[in-house]
Amino acid sequence: MADKRFFTVSEPISLEKLAEIAQADMAGNISAQALYRDVAALSDAVEDQVSFLDNKSYIKAFSTSKAGACLVDPDFADRAPSGMALLLTKQPYHAYARIAQAFHPDRVYVSQHHASASIDPSAVIGKDVTIEPGVVISENVTIGQGTRIGANTVLERAVTVGAHCNIGANVVVQCCLMGDRVILHPGICIGQDGFGFALGAGGHLKVPQLGRVVIENDVEIGAGTTIDRGAGPDTVIGEGTKIDNLVQIGHNVTIGKACVVVAQAGISGSTKIGNFVIIGGQVGIAGHLKIGDGAQIAAKSGLMRNVEAGSKIAGIPGKPIKEWFRGIATLDKLTRKKKG
Amino acid sequence: MADKRFFTVSEPISLEKLAEIAQADMAGNISAQALYRDVAALSDAVEDQVSFLDNKSYIKAFSTSKAGACLVDPDFADRAPSGMALLLTKQPYHAYARIAQAFHPDRVYVSQHHASASIDPSAVIGKDVTIEPGVVISENVTIGQGTRIGANTVLERAVTVGAHCNIGANVVVQCCLMGDRVILHPGICIGQDGFGFALGAGGHLKVPQLGRVVIENDVEIGAGTTIDRGAGPDTVIGEGTKIDNLVQIGHNVTIGKACVVVAQAGISGSTKIGNFVIIGGQVGIAGHLKIGDGAQIAAKSGLMRNVEAGSKIAGIPGKPIKEWFRGIATLDKLTRKKKG
Amino acid sequence: MADKRFFTVSEPISLEKLAEIAQADMAGNISAQALYRDVAALSDAVEDQVSFLDNKSYIKAFSTSKAGACLVDPDFADRAPSGMALLLTKQPYHAYARIAQAFHPDRVYVSQHHASASIDPSAVIGKDVTIEPGVVISENVTIGQGTRIGANTVLERAVTVGAHCNIGANVVVQCCLMGDRVILHPGICIGQDGFGFALGAGGHLKVPQLGRVVIENDVEIGAGTTIDRGAGPDTVIGEGTKIDNLVQIGHNVTIGKACVVVAQAGISGSTKIGNFVIIGGQVGIAGHLKIGDGAQIAAKSGLMRNVEAGSKIAGIPGKPIKEWFRGIATLDKLTRKKKG
Repeated sequence: MADKRFFTVSEPISLEKLAEIAQADMAGNISAQALYRDVAALSDAVEDQVSFLDNKSYIKAFSTSKAGACLVDPDFADRAPSGMALLLTKQPYHAYARIAQAFHPDRVYVSQHHASASIDPSAVIGKDVTIEPGVVISENVTIGQGTRIGANTVLERAVTVGAHCNIGANVVVQCCLMGDRVILHPGICIGQDGFGFALGAGGHLKVPQLGRVVIENDVEIGAGTTIDRGAGPDTVIGEGTKIDNLVQIGHNVTIGKACVVVAQAGISGSTKIGNFVIIGGQVGIAGHLKIGDGAQIAAKSGLMRNVEAGSKIAGIPGKPIKEWFRGIATLDKLTRKKKG
Repeated sequence: MADKRFFTVSEPISLEKLAEIAQADMAGNISAQALYRDVAALSDAVEDQVSFLDNKSYIKAFSTSKAGACLVDPDFADRAPSGMALLLTKQPYHAYARIAQAFHPDRVYVSQHHASASIDPSAVIGKDVTIEPGVVISENVTIGQGTRIGANTVLERAVTVGAHCNIGANVVVQCCLMGDRVILHPGICIGQDGFGFALGAGGHLKVPQLGRVVIENDVEIGAGTTIDRGAGPDTVIGEGTKIDNLVQIGHNVTIGKACVVVAQAGISGSTKIGNFVIIGGQVGIAGHLKIGDGAQIAAKSGLMRNVEAGSKIAGIPGKPIKEWFRGIATLDKLTRKKKG
Repeated sequence: MADKRFFTVSEPISLEKLAEIAQADMAGNISAQALYRDVAALSDAVEDQVSFLDNKSYIKAFSTSKAGACLVDPDFADRAPSGMALLLTKQPYHAYARIAQAFHPDRVYVSQHHASASIDPSAVIGKDVTIEPGVVISENVTIGQGTRIGANTVLERAVTVGAHCNIGANVVVQCCLMGDRVILHPGICIGQDGFGFALGAGGHLKVPQLGRVVIENDVEIGAGTTIDRGAGPDTVIGEGTKIDNLVQIGHNVTIGKACVVVAQAGISGSTKIGNFVIIGGQVGIAGHLKIGDGAQIAAKSGLMRNVEAGSKIAGIPGKPIKEWFRGIATLDKLTRKKKG
């Protein structure tokens, strides 16, 4: 049960309404008017709560769950305990997301410009914007309607933030054009100088970084992540891409649409990532590479070469994941032989 | 000698008193009333300073040290230079910690609520709390007695901070219940949404993150570390656990008591770590794993499987550290052979 | 073309003047008085823009570029398209840096002490210092002439910042002595306690961290990087060293002059790095090691031993890079054989 100190809780929702929200079909002998109050895990849920089964390894937990209702693939419906209302769907996790959202609507921030914020008079701020305490909004910043700027966040000159964005606390943004519905978690740094130096024995000469960061609609970026602006071309984060915490993205990188970049990954300068690419945690990608659409890079890999669309890569240096596993098995076998 | 601009320095302390603080036995021909003024490394220490020998490889430095007194294991006492006062203990490094603490007591923060802080009237703030400039304390926050909140830190709604905590500057905390004597270094982000998406070709659907972060007593967390709140269950950091800088901890992770997590390690969602586990720097641990009590994971390892209590693991993927070293030796031998 | 909302643009500059700035020789049949307005990449540049060729793989782009002028090594001058003004130099990238700087001079911050900053009366602040909104300057801080302190940055007690430094927003600095012309990007944490504990079954005893961080002249440090202060000796970053984003530097580390440390690298406590060392992205270096002058460590390496001056190292554990590549080739060959 979500802690009401931290989360909004809706009124109870009927089974019928839940089926509509979940885009699921009702099954079982429960009244369509039965009311539910929250979501919960299979092992914790009780009579007035809704759970979900998304992973075969939890079938046992499903069969013994005390959840009043459950989102489940029709293929597993016969494993349900008696008396459980079923909401049948081929995508139980998506359906769970929608129902959890219905029980716990996003927090609505009260529109305000807090008196302790420093807002340059040249800034253009839309309707229903929330500017929390200590925020700094510099000259010529633009903020779209319904956006929240979290406490002590700093938007440097001419930054553009779209509508209905949620910018967390203690974020710093420079030289950036941001679309709508972007979510930035706390502690992010966007648009600072890339790491550009002309190296030399007499010292390293700083190369001016003259590009921007372009963040398209519906991007979400995790806490503490750093994204450098372009050196000349822009750094671009494509529509719907989700980036986790403590990720580093170098100058001139472009990431396509709907990619997933897991925590602590690093992408070096000028690398081009396609659409629907998944990059695992702590992956490192060298500069000036191309990663094709739909590629999947296993956690901790280190890429030194281009990656074809659709391939699955692992290892340092990266290779097709099946070859990587075979290499490990080969070395293990040889090692045991040596020992014997 | 500690720089007095930055550190408090106590009055000189007698040898007798130092022995008491260190829980050590005096040896050598020095008066119990002799006075000492500070701690210092073996190679730097002078007559009125106390040093320590904790590592055999420094025995030579010990034998030639000019330190007036030294904490040392009785087994090495005969290697001391003449004229050095000895403080005999089987735990010289622990004893050093206590003596250094005596010479340099923790800074005492003056209790204040700085005028530039934004404090919601519903917040409940204990006695002797220090609230530095620019701090933002939201509705229903609770802060225990004697706690310090560093400058420009943001505590979002309903966060609970225990007594005698030291929260550094520019920290952001959401959806968190924190015990007593917790130390948070600057730039930490706690309690933001975990990385939860129902992936799909039509875009990635955000899954509401409805849990909290529970931080037990005596936890210390390093600068720039990020800890996501639970997706449903809580993320939990157990009593006395010490986490270094730039560590990433995913949603629903639980870490047991007295663990050590070194810098830049990453722990993926729903993994359960036992008690007294040591996780080296830049380690990556996949999601949904169990790491048994007392396990030790070498720096840079990547874990894809559960780890038994007490085991020592290294490599990507992780294996027992002896096997990992044998694998490396095997490959080196084969490589040399090919070459020859 | 740099976005004028974000970057200052100078008046047009003549070819003659550009040659002087670039320290290059003019060639081609273009008037020395011809005017240019900006820099751009070979593929994007137009008639009134200056580009550069620094990498053989771009010779084709050079031969077909529409740039009005180009910085180029004399060896490649004969590959230029007709009508292009040439600026001949053996260091085209250095020359580009100087010309880009001329077209886009550093932003000049207006000297101010913003009313929302908290400045302790004991602080000593030089001439022409810019103190942005929300900055916190504690007792006995010293700031040199012409330095900028970005919004919401916190300088804790007695920190010394040199002249003509540029400290970004949301930075936290403690126990630190900083030279001149230092650049700190946003979100950096400097000078917090190192990770020092006397480990024990009864809990981990905190060891007071009594050193400082010394940052020499002309150092640049990337966003989100963390540098712990010394435990007794100081942590030192040598003159002209450039550190990228999200790097972790432990207590007592010393880094020499003109080193380059790429993003997400981590250097453990008490390690000594020489001069002109290059440390790749996501490298991990164990504690108490010595890395000789001019060594180069490949991205993602993990070092457990000292490194000789001038060597090139790769792998986990690190070895000479040629051996590392041979080891990979050996394992690949054996794996294919097993398969066949």
